[in-house]
Amino acid sequence: MQLSTTLLPGGGKTKSDQIAQEDLAVVIDVLRATSVMCTALQNGAKRVLTCSKVGTARAMADGEASTPLLCGERGCKRIEGFDLGNSPAEYQSEKVADRSLVLTTTNGTRAIEFAGQAGTLITASFLNLAAVADWLSDYTKIHFVCAGTDGEVTAEDVLLAGALVTLCETRFQAEVQDDDSILARQLWASWFSGGNPLDVSTGQLAIRLRETRGGRNLIRVGYDQDLERCAMIGSVTSVPLRSRNDPATFVNGSKSS
Amino acid sequence: MQLSTTLLPGGGKTKSDQIAQEDLAVVIDVLRATSVMCTALQNGAKRVLTCSKVGTARAMADGEASTPLLCGERGCKRIEGFDLGNSPAEYQSEKVADRSLVLTTTNGTRAIEFAGQAGTLITASFLNLAAVADWLSDYTKIHFVCAGTDGEVTAEDVLLAGALVTLCETRFQAEVQDDDSILARQLWASWFSGGNPLDVSTGQLAIRLRETRGGRNLIRVGYDQDLERCAMIGSVTSVPLRSRNDPATFVNGSKSS
Repeated sequence: MQLSTTLLPGGGKTKSDQIAQEDLAVVIDVLRATSVMCTALQNGAKRVLTCSKVGTARAMADGEASTPLLCGERGCKRIEGFDLGNSPAEYQSEKVADRSLVLTTTNGTRAIEFAGQAGTLITASFLNLAAVADWLSDYTKIHFVCAGTDGEVTAEDVLLAGALVTLCETRFQAEVQDDDSILARQLWASWFSGGNPLDVSTGQLAIRLRETRGGRNLIRVGYDQDLERCAMIGSVTSVPLRSRNDPATFVNGSKSS
Repeated sequence: MQLSTTLLPGGGKTKSDQIAQEDLAVVIDVLRATSVMCTALQNGAKRVLTCSKVGTARAMADGEASTPLLCGERGCKRIEGFDLGNSPAEYQSEKVADRSLVLTTTNGTRAIEFAGQAGTLITASFLNLAAVADWLSDYTKIHFVCAGTDGEVTAEDVLLAGALVTLCETRFQAEVQDDDSILARQLWASWFSGGNPLDVSTGQLAIRLRETRGGRNLIRVGYDQDLERCAMIGSVTSVPLRSRNDPATFVNGSKSS
């Protein structure tokens, strides 16, 4: 098993070109898009359509047979006229069961497009880490793509990539192919002594999320509690899996439930 | 003191825009451009002109009053017809004293241009780490710019950025402003227990350089010994300082000799 990581999509085109049809791509946007996506599917949402722009989201919603929920944030807050913002706490069964969701996520969409050539594309958060781990063993080449924020690297995404690299090295004797993977792994190693990611507590992880760019942003606008919510390792078994028919749509691809 | 780091120039334009006239930029290309530059100036070279292309290097050389040495590599090897390659071992006094040098370095030049707005721009390697440290205390904002290689992050450059972040936090209670700086610092912390960078031995550092992309490249083409040479922390007191008159020319800006 060979691992590569992209700390920030966009800059080096090279890495995108190296992603092939037979590979697995794992897109990571811990705070909060990929945490929201797996929570929504876990709680019964039929599917999640992703797009980067608010206008596109409204247009996509108009095109749906049954009215989908409009979801997403700008500056961490719910978009005016939208049904849900970007906190996992909003995505409970009462709201999302049996519904289609349209989620605007600028950074997440960029990362999904960057990894577009992968035949299999899933999204990961700390919430569904154990379920994502069940996906990894079937692939020879795996690419972790960190979404970042507005063109800057975000340590919370790199930390999850590092946890996944650590899991793959431990379980599957995986080999890292690039220095981005080394940086990710060593970030995990330095903050959690290289321990088993599935053994880390929510409290320990939340402390680290508070130090990151994404974490500081959320604290500034009053969403402290979402750091704990996004740090509940292994609490979700759903794995958002990109639909074969529509590269912007995700359905529940869990292998473990 | 505020610190920011760029793991790879190019991708996010944002960071380049944040560099101001009153700031200090520190460009890092450990294997091997910035190691060569400080070695050359240490051994008496009058100045080092940098450019990215071989043709430009030849043209710059033609324009000089006294014939400069043509220096640089492609694929780690000396360019045909050039006087010197890219190993610090070639830059001894007998060769470079009182000479002007024209050095082609693709990644180094990109990083220098990325940090172009800085009023003060120096280059750092592990060799001149102690001398670079003497430069830091005078600035409120410092930007570390890692050169990377061909559009990919290289851990050896990030490791030196991490050593510099660690020095600034320890000596000057500096604050990191971005997650790139956190990643760099934690890479240093994970590989050297966060210790004082000036206390690390050449042998300890060379072991880590062998794990990086740049290090593996050099080993593959038979330049193993350059890893030791580029790991001699504190062996050089020269600091390449960008000339006020010519943004591609570096002179010795050492404060300590």
